[in-house]
Formats: sequence, structure tokens, C-alpha cells
Amino acid sequence: MDNDDIRFMRMALEEAKKAMEMDEVPIGAVVVSNGRIIARAHNYTEHLTDITAHAEMQAITSASSTLGGKYLTDCTIYVTVEPCVMCAGALGWAQIGRVVYGADDDKRGYRKFAPNALHVKTKVESGVLKEECAELMSSFFKQKR
Amino acid sequence: MDNDDIRFMRMALEEAKKAMEMDEVPIGAVVVSNGRIIARAHNYTEHLTDITAHAEMQAITSASSTLGGKYLTDCTIYVTVEPCVMCAGALGWAQIGRVVYGADDDKRGYRKFAPNALHVKTKVESGVLKEECAELMSSFFKQKR
Repeated sequence: MDNDDIRFMRMALEEAKKAMEMDEVPIGAVVVSNGRIIARAHNYTEHLTDITAHAEMQAITSASSTLGGKYLTDCTIYVTVEPCVMCAGALGWAQIGRVVYGADDDKRGYRKFAPNALHVKTKVESGVLKEECAELMSSFFKQKR
Repeated sequence: MDNDDIRFMRMALEEAKKAMEMDEVPIGAVVVSNGRIIARAHNYTEHLTDITAHAEMQAITSASSTLGGKYLTDCTIYVTVEPCVMCAGALGWAQIGRVVYGADDDKRGYRKFAPNALHVKTKVESGVLKEECAELMSSFFKQKR
């Protein structure tokens, strides 16, 4: 876990907090290319009435638009929670270079349901700022009960 | 395979043909609720420069918008080719009532990579007009070589 990873995960956490303030599930993501953030997004499913509007999906769409190409092979996505099957499938199509996530999602995470969804060349790192990432989720769902 | 299934799959095939004419991978989808089509879409990844723009993803977004709700529990999606991991994950989140697809996709289809991606209550039927659906795909990729 290097300093850049922590720094970019903090930016993803900022996105997650924006989601929290909007009463959306607090998951945030940033996409980094050559040391620069090229996309930021957070979960937006409630406001858009659209289950496809996960942080990662919107970050992929935004990053592809910025780069002008469909593939994100030289990019890293930082996301506060382990991607779900849908998002892992999308990251697989995008052939993203690296996935760094914070908290595990043992219920809906891709590792359980689709462990081979990512591209074979994609590197994965987990556990970066995992306590903060997980804490945001648990406090959101606690207030919902 | 009943007459309605064939009729709606023909509509999905019409969408796939539109994609073909635009030089997009020829996969089409329609979403049906109470016997009426509430969304039509086809693959749009090239023109949008966005790998998330699969037919099913856009059909889900469109159907949710039409219904004003995130869940498609009373809907059927007709799609010409077996959904990929991303799309199956999305259909899982949408808790769609039924998935009817035409041709199998042994390389990228969800059954191989994420067999439990759909909601446990979702009914699945495959093979409807499979020859036409598969033929469209093979003629597209033949012309690409």
C-alpha cells in the first residue's frame, strides 16, 4: 500500500461521502491515468432510479469519454467497496489495468459470484483504507434500519 | 416457446439489425411489461465509446425510467444473445422477472463466469430464434475479419 494509493482512495472516499449526503449508498470511485484523476463518481441509483448507476459504472463511462477510447488498460480504478458482479464485468470489458478497493463485500462482491470477471491482466489490490470505507457503509445501513 | 416469445424476440432482432447497420455488435433487447414493450435498445458501445453501453444495460435504464422504479420484477427482457457477466449482474440487481435469450455465448456468457448472477426468482429461457440471433453475430464478425 503506497502513499499514492492512500491518497487516491481518500478521493474515492470523498465521493462516497457525497453519496451519503444524498442518501445514496456511500460508495465512491476515481479513475487515475498517469498519476492524474480522470473521472470521479459515486453511487447514484436512487436519484436516477437506475440500478446500473453504480460508482464504478459511471466512472468507467466518464473515464472512457475523457480518454476518447473504450479501453482503460493504463488506468487504475480506486473504489471504496469491492465491485459487484455487474461492475466487475464492466471493468473486465474495459480491460482496466488495476483495481484497488477498500472494504470487502462478502454478500454481493464479485469474488464470490464471478471470480474470473476481470481481465486476466488486471491487477487487484484490496484493503486500502478499508476501515473508513466499511465504516461509511455500516453507518449508512444502520441509519436506514 | 410460445408465440409471444417469438414475437418479442423478433423485435429484439430488429434492434440487433439496427446495431448491425451502424457497425455495432448486433445484439438487441426489448423489455416487456404486461404484454407491452416498454424499452428497446441495441449495442451502442462503438458510437458512445463506452463498454457499458450493451443492449441490456440500456434497456434496463430505459425500462426503469419508463416505470419510474428501479426494479423490473414484473418484466421480461428479450435479448438476442446470452447476457455477459456485466449485464447478468445488472439484471440481478433489477430483479427482473424473466430473461429470454436467443443464442448462447459460450465465450463471454454469464452462465460460465457468473452462473448465480441473476436473482434467485428470475426465470430463464434460452434458444428462442437462436439460429437467426447467432447468424447475425457470425456474419458481423465474418465481415470484420
